[in-house]
Amino acid sequence: MPHSNYYGLILAGGRGTRFWPRSRRRRAKQVLEFFGAGTLIQQTVDRLKPVLPPDRIWVLTNDHLRAEIVRQLPQVPPGQILAEPVARNTAPAIGLAAHILQSINPDATLGVFPADHYITQPARFLRLVRPAFRAAGRGSLVVIGIRPRRPETGFGYIEFAPGVKPGEPRVVPVLSFREKPDLDSAKQFVEAGHFFWNAGMFFGRASTFLGALRDHMPRTATLLAHLPEFRNRRFAAKMRETFPLCENLSIDYGVMEKAKNVAGLAADDIGWNDVGSWEAVAELQAGDEQGNAARAEALFMDGSRNYVDAPGKLVAMLGVSDLIVVDMPDALLVADRRQAQKVGKLVELLETRHREDLL
Amino acid sequence: MPHSNYYGLILAGGRGTRFWPRSRRRRAKQVLEFFGAGTLIQQTVDRLKPVLPPDRIWVLTNDHLRAEIVRQLPQVPPGQILAEPVARNTAPAIGLAAHILQSINPDATLGVFPADHYITQPARFLRLVRPAFRAAGRGSLVVIGIRPRRPETGFGYIEFAPGVKPGEPRVVPVLSFREKPDLDSAKQFVEAGHFFWNAGMFFGRASTFLGALRDHMPRTATLLAHLPEFRNRRFAAKMRETFPLCENLSIDYGVMEKAKNVAGLAADDIGWNDVGSWEAVAELQAGDEQGNAARAEALFMDGSRNYVDAPGKLVAMLGVSDLIVVDMPDALLVADRRQAQKVGKLVELLETRHREDLL
Repeated sequence: MPHSNYYGLILAGGRGTRFWPRSRRRRAKQVLEFFGAGTLIQQTVDRLKPVLPPDRIWVLTNDHLRAEIVRQLPQVPPGQILAEPVARNTAPAIGLAAHILQSINPDATLGVFPADHYITQPARFLRLVRPAFRAAGRGSLVVIGIRPRRPETGFGYIEFAPGVKPGEPRVVPVLSFREKPDLDSAKQFVEAGHFFWNAGMFFGRASTFLGALRDHMPRTATLLAHLPEFRNRRFAAKMRETFPLCENLSIDYGVMEKAKNVAGLAADDIGWNDVGSWEAVAELQAGDEQGNAARAEALFMDGSRNYVDAPGKLVAMLGVSDLIVVDMPDALLVADRRQAQKVGKLVELLETRHREDLL
Repeated sequence: MPHSNYYGLILAGGRGTRFWPRSRRRRAKQVLEFFGAGTLIQQTVDRLKPVLPPDRIWVLTNDHLRAEIVRQLPQVPPGQILAEPVARNTAPAIGLAAHILQSINPDATLGVFPADHYITQPARFLRLVRPAFRAAGRGSLVVIGIRPRRPETGFGYIEFAPGVKPGEPRVVPVLSFREKPDLDSAKQFVEAGHFFWNAGMFFGRASTFLGALRDHMPRTATLLAHLPEFRNRRFAAKMRETFPLCENLSIDYGVMEKAKNVAGLAADDIGWNDVGSWEAVAELQAGDEQGNAARAEALFMDGSRNYVDAPGKLVAMLGVSDLIVVDMPDALLVADRRQAQKVGKLVELLETRHREDLL
């Protein structure tokens, strides 16, 4: 029986422009299906089910996406799927959720999970989530680190106490948080063996998070403390006033780096992927002998390592390699997969051209 | 006033699979628009207008295309747009037209033109068509050769009498026809200066063509001679019986190579292009500074020499070069432009898969 003080907070406010043309303001990455078996946010909720029943899931998103998320998560009470009035990064979001849950259950313990990551080994993942919740219930702030597979410079790193054994369901002290490093530092981190990717998963009692905010982000803590109770009919209006005044800081930077009571679990082989671009989607597909993969009926002739996303269409790829092709009724992307992370720049270009119809 | 014994025969039976996915059985290359200002067959008729009014244009095509061609050429009498019961190459087609026109006008002189070529300088072209008709009227079989721009091995060549001056509106003797040569021969042809590309344009009196057929393809000549008159109500049924028995030969190979009375005009700079593949279409477009061109709203980022055909759609090309992208509602082609001539093989593949919906 899942412990009734445990709550899941799914952070689903991201826009995910790098998945254009499939991603749009109202169809951001977290509400898209890439791998079958549901959209990323549906999979996020599904994989937590053994620990967190849907009625203890809360979601923070934005006005563009809320209706779609309510539709995709019929098992989650719609009153627990909230739209932030503005995007204010993770510290105010977690603080808001802690404020709400604290008023519902003074022993509430939160697990915070990004809505748009992918985990191929959910059972192994859960073997870490349970001890993370337990340690959080005892008063720690707890993180899950991912064993680095390469000297990635696009992620933050968590420095665990040396000697940490990845995969062991046991919390160990966290010594420091490192922001996105340069390549040399990233290489040293990977070599050292006790630095892990920060996957944006955090655990703590609502009261612990609120206390840490008071210590390290007092302005935000005060603003949140003056909100009425969640069930009060003035809550929504007051929140719309207050939330934009909160500091635009991540929980890592604003709180975790400075807090004393931080511990963590180091994941080994849970198959975590942040699905950062079409390149990541392509890598996660089982391709044919030439490394070609498709979510479409595709003919590949003389080419390799292509990924095609065009459901309902026949796509013929002739003499081309290393391409990402994404087809929508109103827009088509053809990109070198090694440049897939630049798709966000295309979206910026569309913004400067005021192509609201395609955003 | 155009001479009333002159008739145009537009050969429009080709399938043009190399323009898939835009080309289909019922939408072959000749009925597609690539360059604005009408489809290829519309442009073919339009450019002949100063010499041949539409009521003296005849078209030979197939059952798949006839309705579309009737629609595209409202100025041509529908009774002059005929569907061959089977494809039998150019010699029987020209013989059939000669048989029909001979019975309408014993002095009929035909100019034969492929429906699917492109000519950027129609006025210069017409300066050759008029003397070609005149020489044909006097009893010659006349061809127009195109000054070769490269040692192309995909075309046949016409050997003119040495000393021929390209662009001069004067017929000169033709010494030989050469089938598609190997590269060394093609290079020698270009260097020699009196070898010209065979563009499939032929001129002759109906009686001259019929006489040449009697001399060199007697079986076909006899079959055609036994057809009833065109206006006889048994013509269509009899033609369906007879035509498939004709020899499947080109007029070049079956007649022109062997005939004695062959003369020609050598074209210099009429901008002729056989539009053999998407690569040719791409080359004929005015691109931007990076050589990118589009029949679509296109965004090109970090790439050059791409061609995009996707009317009504926004297409973003990111970090890719030398691609042909052709989008249709049911199918999409992404090809290396240097391999564009292999698109026909894709269509063969679709045939083996019985994808009639896409053919």
